[in-house]
Formats: sequence, C-alpha cells, structure tokens
Amino acid sequence: MSDAPIVRPLPVSGFPEWLPEVRIVEQRWLDTIRATFERYGFSSVETPSVEALDVLTAKGETSQEVYTLRRLQADADDDSARLGLHFDLTVPFARYVAAHFNELVFPFKRYQMQRVWRGERPQEGRFREFTQCDIDVINVDRVPLHFDAELPRIVHEVLGTLGVPPWTLNINNRKVLQGFYEGLGIGDPLAVIRIADKMDKIGPDGVANLLGAQAGLDADQVRACLDLAAIRATGPGVVDEVRRLGVKSDLLTEGLDELAQVLGDLADLPTGSVVADLSIARGLDYYTGTVYEAKFVDWPDFGSICSGGRYENLAGSFIRRSLPGVGISIGLTRIFAKLLAEGLLPTGPASPADVLVVVPAAERRAAALATATALRARGLKVETYHQPDKLAKQVRYAARKGIGFVWFPPFDEGREHEVKNMATGDQTAADPAAWHPTSS
Amino acid sequence: MSDAPIVRPLPVSGFPEWLPEVRIVEQRWLDTIRATFERYGFSSVETPSVEALDVLTAKGETSQEVYTLRRLQADADDDSARLGLHFDLTVPFARYVAAHFNELVFPFKRYQMQRVWRGERPQEGRFREFTQCDIDVINVDRVPLHFDAELPRIVHEVLGTLGVPPWTLNINNRKVLQGFYEGLGIGDPLAVIRIADKMDKIGPDGVANLLGAQAGLDADQVRACLDLAAIRATGPGVVDEVRRLGVKSDLLTEGLDELAQVLGDLADLPTGSVVADLSIARGLDYYTGTVYEAKFVDWPDFGSICSGGRYENLAGSFIRRSLPGVGISIGLTRIFAKLLAEGLLPTGPASPADVLVVVPAAERRAAALATATALRARGLKVETYHQPDKLAKQVRYAARKGIGFVWFPPFDEGREHEVKNMATGDQTAADPAAWHPTSS
Repeated sequence: MSDAPIVRPLPVSGFPEWLPEVRIVEQRWLDTIRATFERYGFSSVETPSVEALDVLTAKGETSQEVYTLRRLQADADDDSARLGLHFDLTVPFARYVAAHFNELVFPFKRYQMQRVWRGERPQEGRFREFTQCDIDVINVDRVPLHFDAELPRIVHEVLGTLGVPPWTLNINNRKVLQGFYEGLGIGDPLAVIRIADKMDKIGPDGVANLLGAQAGLDADQVRACLDLAAIRATGPGVVDEVRRLGVKSDLLTEGLDELAQVLGDLADLPTGSVVADLSIARGLDYYTGTVYEAKFVDWPDFGSICSGGRYENLAGSFIRRSLPGVGISIGLTRIFAKLLAEGLLPTGPASPADVLVVVPAAERRAAALATATALRARGLKVETYHQPDKLAKQVRYAARKGIGFVWFPPFDEGREHEVKNMATGDQTAADPAAWHPTSS
Repeated sequence: MSDAPIVRPLPVSGFPEWLPEVRIVEQRWLDTIRATFERYGFSSVETPSVEALDVLTAKGETSQEVYTLRRLQADADDDSARLGLHFDLTVPFARYVAAHFNELVFPFKRYQMQRVWRGERPQEGRFREFTQCDIDVINVDRVPLHFDAELPRIVHEVLGTLGVPPWTLNINNRKVLQGFYEGLGIGDPLAVIRIADKMDKIGPDGVANLLGAQAGLDADQVRACLDLAAIRATGPGVVDEVRRLGVKSDLLTEGLDELAQVLGDLADLPTGSVVADLSIARGLDYYTGTVYEAKFVDWPDFGSICSGGRYENLAGSFIRRSLPGVGISIGLTRIFAKLLAEGLLPTGPASPADVLVVVPAAERRAAALATATALRARGLKVETYHQPDKLAKQVRYAARKGIGFVWFPPFDEGREHEVKNMATGDQTAADPAAWHPTSS
C-alpha cells in the first residue's frame, strides 16, 4: 500500500452502479425485454454512443443537455469537440437508417437497448447516464397506423412480465393538438404545443398565463386550449368529447380518426392501462402524430417511464427520402432505480453459480476441479472454492454469495460425492454425471 | 421532406456500427462469452461509462487518450470538464471494489462486458469506441496464483467456442523483468520495462538504442536485456533458459517460480496456445506479476486481441486496504471486426424471427394476428407481415430478412393452416398449437 492520497472511490453523482445482487436482476430484466422484442420479430441494432454534433442537433433539438467530447491531450486539429454523446436512441436510429438505406429491408423493425447521456443536474429519477430500451418501425413513405397500437401492446407485455407496479399509458396525437389550435385561428401551433407541454410542471394557470403572455392568445383561445387539455378518456369516445368543444379543421379530424383507431386497437387491454390524455404533447419537435407517455399510477409526480410517438420527417434530415417512423422507449434505469429505492425489487443472489464445489484439502484440489468440470459440461454454473479451507468457512461463503448448492467431492478416492441444499440444509449423496439442481 | 441541408449520415470514423445481420452474430458472441463466464461462477458488474478524471489517472495513467466531457450549454459551475469516459474496465473495477468494499464477498470474481473509449486516430483494428469483455478476481491481501492460470483457461474456452482462428496467449511475469534488470544493476527497472515494451513497434535495434540513449545502460546490460527478450518457451523449461543468462536476484527467482507454475497449470492446453514470451511487458504501470497478451497466429502484426495481468496496488489508490487482483480482457470488437473484414464471419439472418405470418387479405388480419399470438405463446419468435399484399411479395420479404418459415393462415375459416420451409421450399399443413421449426 502506498501513502499516496486516496482518490474518492464513489461513482460520480447521477451515474448509477449496482451491487452484483442488483445487477443480476437488471440483467434478467434486460434479457426479458430483449426476448419479448425478439418474439415480435424486431431486429437488434446498436449505434455508436457518439455522434457528430450536427446529427444530434439536426432537428434543432437543443433542449436536451448534450455532453460534448474533448481529448485530454487535444491538439490543434482535434476534431473531438464536434462530437457528442447521444441523448436518446431515436435520432441515432434515424441516422442509421439513412446511412444504411440501401442495405436494410423495409419496414425496418428494430429494438435498441443502450445507455444514453444527458448533462442534467441529478435528482430523483433523473440520471446523467441511463439505459433505454426502444422499439421503432421505420418504413419508406408510409408506416401503417396499426403499428401505433402494436408498439404499446409489446411494451404492455414487457412491463407485465417484469411485474412492474400499475402504470398508465397516456396517448395523444399531435395532429389533434395542432389541428385544434389551427381551428382556433392560432398562427403558430408549435409554440402553443411547447407551452401546453409544461402543464405537468406549471399547472393550468401557469400554462394559461404563458399562452396569453408568450403566444399572444386571447381569453377564448386560452380557455379552449385548457378545455382540450383537460380531456381524459379510455376509448374512442374521446372524439365526441373533443368535437363538443366546437373547433374544426381537417388536421383535427385526421388526428381524431387516428387517435380513435389506436385506442380501438388497444381496447382489449385491461381498463385504465391505456388512456387518451389530451394534455400530452411531448416537447420534442420531431413528433408529428401519435404520442405516448406512461406513468406509474401510484407515483404520478415521478414523471414518464416510457415515451415515444410517430415522426414523419426525422430521417429526412439525413437523406432525401420520406422515411416516417413510430417508436416507443422504455426508461429502464428510471423504472428499475425507482423500484429499488421503494424496496419493491427483490434482489438476486450475488453470484450466478448454481453450485460451489469445496476444496476439502490441498491434495484434493485436482479432484474438486475435475468435479466442477464435469458439472459445467452439463451446463451448470459452477464455482470452485479458491483454496483449501475449513469446510464451515466454505459453506458460509456459498451462503453469503447466494449459491444454492454446495458440492463435497469425496475426501478419499472411491467414496461418494455429496451435495448440500442450502435452502433446506439436506445433504445427500450425488453423482456429478447425473445430478441436477432440481433433483436435490 | 424539407429542403434543409442534408446532414451526413455516416457514423463517425472509429465508431463502428453493424448491419442487423452482423449485429445478430455479435449478440450471439456476447451471449456465448457471458454464458462461459457465468459457468465459472463470475458475477456480472457494470460501472458507469464516466469516471472522475482523478480516478482515471489515479495510477499516473496518461498514455491512453482519454475523452473528457463538457456540457454543450456549460455554465460557470459546470463540473463535467472533470469527467472522462473510461478507457478500460480494470481501473473502474478497482474503484468499484473500493467503493463497495464492505458489501462485497471476497474473493470477488466478476465479469464486465462494456464499451470503452480512447481518443486515438482510427486505423485498422483501432477503434475509438469498442467493447471489452473482462474477467478479474480481486481479494483481500492475497489472490492465489492458480487464478493466473484459470483466467486464460476460461478465455481459451471462450475463443474456442466462438471458433476464432488460431491464436497464441503469450505470458510473462513483470517480476522476472524487474528482477532481471535489478540483477543487472539497473537503477530504474520500470523505465527499462517501458522501453522494452516497444519491441513490437521499433524492433530489437530500436530498443537497444533507447536502452543506451534514454536509460543509460551499458553495452553488456543492453545485450542481456535483448537476450532475455528473445526467449520463447512453451513450458516450465523457460526457467532454465533465463537462468542460463547468469543474472540473479530474489525478485527474479520469485517471478520465475510464478511463471513456471502458471505454465505448468496450463500444460494440458494444446501445444502452441500458451507461450512464455519474455519480451511481453504490457506498458501499463499497474501490472506487477503475470502479464498476458494474445495474438492471432496468422496476423502477428495485428496486435493484441486479449491482454491483462496481475496488479497488486491498483485498488490501493482508492482505499487503505491491500486488494490485489488479476484479470484478463478480451478485445471483442477488435476480434469481431477483424474476422468480418477478412470475410471469416458468417453473417446471420437480418431478423431474429423464426416465422413470418402472412396477411392474405385485410379481413384476415385478425386471424393472422391470432395465429402469431398462438405461436408466440409457445416461445417462438414471430413477425406478422405489416399489410395485406401479394403473397409472393410477403414470401420474398421473409427471404430477404432470412426468416426460415412462412406461415399461411387459411383464407377461409375452417380450412387448414400451412407452413413453408424457406430452405427446402416444402409447404405442408400445420397446427399453430403444435408446430415447431424442427418438425417441418
């Protein structure tokens, strides 16, 4: 040990890391999500963590806090300062589709499970590095509307399989918002959408103030906007509720038709799991139709745990083709860390091993290794204890690592092997060429 | 489509990305590696991609090109400039062990498969973002020497299972080098190690020049150093070869004993797969004993594909405990990209789906979806075609995505389902409640 000053070993704030008994559960979650995505035939894609800054900002997206890169020993021709870490997986995916347009089969259905980075100040549920699990469909010219329902259905299956506490998927359609505002005679509907998107944070009064002061709406227009944002409905009846406000435009009709069809396609899901929420806007400029935002029922203030929507023009920043898409993103780290913090996440064992083979004495180490090899050859996960030691100590090591079975190779050649079931305490004779965890 | 200027969609140079039919193979590789690591009872750990700069440079490690971070909209109290992307997984792991010392069970055996970043100029086999797959053992006070053999044995199994072309694991021991140089009366053995490590790049003459000019060695010392570096041996006979050079020191004896034991433990592996190579030094300052470096037999100039070694004092930068470790890292992206470039990597299908269910007509879409659901409930991976279309077009879509079977729900209620084996062209009646890919 040196006498050099000690460097603080904690991870940087906002950059989560888990103990092995938590990580093993996260890995199980990732496996479950991936298996579900693949069961629907989605292909895996990964893109670099790093993109050119002009790619990341191609849609004028500057509301996200992007981390840019610089080499520690940067020289004059350093190009790394024009690089940034991706802040979502949608923009890189659109870039990927444009880059490989001639080599992909369309409609291209992909899943992507990667870390993303945002240089935000850390707070509950907000990380600076976190994992997202996205599914998107991009097609040439047109993406059938039924995908707008299929994607949340897959997410519903994923979260159900993971056993996540009750949650609601709120759905809206940007055409409804934009068409409604146009029908009200508002000149810059996008500005109104951006203000309406703050409803969660500043409430109806705050939004009303901004709509007047910033967007220049009159009192009637403000009231109509708030009336629209107050609408919640669990089925296609949402159309009548909007129509009752008396506003008309072609885009509004188109948006309501789409919204009604998506809600109708999802009508078989449990009541309350999908809700039309006309206040949902999703601030990102690239959404053009359906938008999604899921929240925990019990923690509404925790914010979004899944989000997404339909984008018509995102890939158009990179290629002169019409490549519309629709996608949804599961905020894995947000959900996982919340359940962990709430004590709702049963942790796993600290080791993946099924069996610990003990080393009864130095001269029996070769026999212990041979036993472990025989068990592994049959697909079992096996750790060999690292040195001859008191048997009680070796058994305690297995208990602390959550290993379910302890294997005792015979002390003397020719005697029987024994295996101890750590859950029941039973110890029985066993054959390394035939034994299985379920047989003890 | 907008008329805005097109942003170049290619990924940034040095940041690889794969098409779906390549990514599916990479994913299979990662699964294989992980399964092997777990079969030996290693626990999964992931650490943040980002560490404080003083962590990354705790061992004076400045030879790696570290990427530092800066928020795009950085303000005065921005702390991100003191953050960097990790350039390996060993330093973060040592930091992790120190941070969670009281919660871990020792010896702590972990695997870690993550991306790392180095701000180097891209060239063949050198990426700026790449995935490494590491296994390490860290223990309190002492790590038994047999781990120095167990880790390369696991790597041997991994690379064998992956079907990687012939490769050699070169082993050396830093105590042999340091002890030998001390025995020669050299005052700064570490400086000599750093020069000797350049053998690959500048050859014996270049090293000889630097040993004289920079390290101040006399002609006899230089010759002895080169004689040592020229030694290659496939077994414990290496000890006699070194002894024959007539240099003596306690540290040299200790290093030779360790090297002989590790080689002896690996003697059952195929001849040529493990070689003692006394020129291997591994530049990193944190190695203190065994060092590893693997290379392809057919592409010796391609450089290292696995590397690692034993480090006694790495975690000591973060905690006042003795936490020695030994580890080895598989350079997954380097190996994978090389085989891809050489045309030696059979690519997979572009889709993970086992079956494509066709949609014969709009009014049969519900029946197609029900068929897909039935097949999925039995664990199969199933894509439903996205719209009613000519059957020939739907079959061609399956062929282009590499989907092995096309399922035809009946056109009329009550008639039989049929399934087409795309490899053989056979089309037969099938029951969605009983059919399996191996049955057709």
